[in-house]
Amino acid sequence: MIPVADARARILAALRPTAAEIVPLAEAWGRVTAAPVLSRLTQPPRDVSAMDGYAVRAQDAMLGAALRVVGNAPAGHPWEGTVQPGETVRLFTGSVVPAGADAIVIQEDVTRAGAVATINEAAGVGRHIRRAGQDFACGDVLLPAGKRLNARDIGLAAAGNHPWLAVHRRPRIAILATGDEIALPGEPIPAGGIVSSNSHALAALVRAAGGEPVVLPVVADNREAVMAVADAVHGMDMLVTTGGASVGEHDLVQEALGARGLQVDFWQIAMRPGKPLMFGQMGPVAMLGLPGNPVSALVCATLFLLPAIQVLSGLPAAPPPTVQARLGSDVAANDKRADHLRATLTLAEDGSLIATPFPRQDSAMLRLMAQADALVLRPPYAAAVAAGGLVDVIRLDTLGL
Amino acid sequence: MIPVADARARILAALRPTAAEIVPLAEAWGRVTAAPVLSRLTQPPRDVSAMDGYAVRAQDAMLGAALRVVGNAPAGHPWEGTVQPGETVRLFTGSVVPAGADAIVIQEDVTRAGAVATINEAAGVGRHIRRAGQDFACGDVLLPAGKRLNARDIGLAAAGNHPWLAVHRRPRIAILATGDEIALPGEPIPAGGIVSSNSHALAALVRAAGGEPVVLPVVADNREAVMAVADAVHGMDMLVTTGGASVGEHDLVQEALGARGLQVDFWQIAMRPGKPLMFGQMGPVAMLGLPGNPVSALVCATLFLLPAIQVLSGLPAAPPPTVQARLGSDVAANDKRADHLRATLTLAEDGSLIATPFPRQDSAMLRLMAQADALVLRPPYAAAVAAGGLVDVIRLDTLGL
Repeated sequence: MIPVADARARILAALRPTAAEIVPLAEAWGRVTAAPVLSRLTQPPRDVSAMDGYAVRAQDAMLGAALRVVGNAPAGHPWEGTVQPGETVRLFTGSVVPAGADAIVIQEDVTRAGAVATINEAAGVGRHIRRAGQDFACGDVLLPAGKRLNARDIGLAAAGNHPWLAVHRRPRIAILATGDEIALPGEPIPAGGIVSSNSHALAALVRAAGGEPVVLPVVADNREAVMAVADAVHGMDMLVTTGGASVGEHDLVQEALGARGLQVDFWQIAMRPGKPLMFGQMGPVAMLGLPGNPVSALVCATLFLLPAIQVLSGLPAAPPPTVQARLGSDVAANDKRADHLRATLTLAEDGSLIATPFPRQDSAMLRLMAQADALVLRPPYAAAVAAGGLVDVIRLDTLGL
Repeated sequence: MIPVADARARILAALRPTAAEIVPLAEAWGRVTAAPVLSRLTQPPRDVSAMDGYAVRAQDAMLGAALRVVGNAPAGHPWEGTVQPGETVRLFTGSVVPAGADAIVIQEDVTRAGAVATINEAAGVGRHIRRAGQDFACGDVLLPAGKRLNARDIGLAAAGNHPWLAVHRRPRIAILATGDEIALPGEPIPAGGIVSSNSHALAALVRAAGGEPVVLPVVADNREAVMAVADAVHGMDMLVTTGGASVGEHDLVQEALGARGLQVDFWQIAMRPGKPLMFGQMGPVAMLGLPGNPVSALVCATLFLLPAIQVLSGLPAAPPPTVQARLGSDVAANDKRADHLRATLTLAEDGSLIATPFPRQDSAMLRLMAQADALVLRPPYAAAVAAGGLVDVIRLDTLGL
């Protein structure tokens, strides 16, 4: 049996990011930059006012001074003259500071009477002026390559004058469920059969991770049908299979796709739930074989598929993010397998997270898995931890998993 | 000035969830259930084996017993006979337990020779059998109404045999930037003008929140042009405006849309950044007016628009989620306005979160806002907190904001 971290490292080392494509800024949220985004302009473009007020020459703007208002400059309508001694120009937040002026007196500190503005509070040089380039200068790196774009990044790329962005193509992940016993929801269910939950749960996980799922038709436990999948994965970045449990986990998939060129490693992972894992390569397509049990498949997908999609997407290789929580109940010492306890999360009165594992950790219970907010990570041979002790958890809730 | 929480409560109280629509299961990830999802079947459908092994009558399966293998039942191929005394049936994980049998002996505990299976470890009644309905029964509530569907929920709905789900329609949020000084990225920039970052940053935020953004063309500071927006918002759930800063925040929008039936409250919120906020109703369309400053607009959108979209989506009224972090540097005592410090997050060696506010909290610096991972919440009149002290933060990174 190999440790979870070793298996993940071997998978991630075999993967390369997808190529770049151009998308409109308006479609770029959640995508990963394929190149640094450099500003195409300077922001603010010129010295601008930080407030609604009056542009003055600081040496003129002494307490009680009466200045002549020679211009009015809303944002976007710069006053192109030069402020002379004894003059002032009315302006607003974002207005360009006219030549000659070197300070802003805010409107609350001015008494206006017709064309005369009387200064009630003196202003030093530079007061309330945002200098050109204070936020960024033309050519500055606004966003690095390999960053997943959030809403603020989109705003920053817009401010840097980018209508298009180069991002990594969404990884295309083919999902294959095998087994004579399974049907898709709403389709006739064979005798003793069940409805397939893996395909669409994994497709949703792929979507949550920023990939593009392609759900292949269910394949019966039939060598020729499985072999045909080799043609169906053309253009995919990865094939994810589940099950084949009716004839021994993975045996049929491994044998039938092996005949079509699949080079595969078959690993026993020191973890619970979900021990067997298959990983390999079929030409340019990576291949990940998950357990057929739905809970095991989802836990393994969280630990291995999610990071794999991130690497394919152009993000750094990393395990799923963890946070700390206090245990809501005691947990026993662990054996040699890393355990992943399904747990609910609540907030303590002091605002800290409390993770309470379900008393029953049966890997056949998908409903409990769906009710979990987090997986409590229990490393191999971890000592018992009493309620209140700190543990690392993967927050499924915030990952959309 | 009114407190942040009061303003949010007034906004949320005015909103109603969108109506339901039917979407395919494969498109339902991230959507919010409009009705409880009840199971349409029982899972497991019958008593099934939890392991690969042999179905036996427990009273026969004593140590050393030699049982006759009378059948073979892969998952999906039930053996429909009845196990008689001295008989056994080969089965696999998920196989239906045949009539007559009441226990499973796992294959590792059986020596098989032709049609004879010799028992090397006795099994008690019920051993390794998953009872029909152990996961859920037909009619059980699998998912409540008002839940955002994650990958596991999709799996559970599939297992409950739902090819379609009733979800709330995505809230349609019209976004309007006003101002003579702004241009869209890639378009000609007027003299002294800037590129609009608000529209697409807010559109991305709407998307992150599960809404459907509709970005309206930029409207100049012109009464007729603003009035025409009243027609453009037909069919929208909410109109979000930013700016109009060149003639006083909101004044033009408030006046021009007022002439078209906008009933509006104009609030000074006791917060920083982003003091002025407008909220109202234009017929069936709610209206939220955000500050024009991009940092203020994004902070206000996080505090007010995000929860508003959640209520429109059918989720409970709630503030943005917070977590606790330890400060990475001292913060001073706060004044009467709730402050929202832009901060980076790092992990301490013990795994706890550390939030370090940027030394400069200038609301004109969009780049710093984009580099932040979190907003540190500083309530009105909060005392100074030294580095290491606990604060509540909104994690922008995990929200896709």
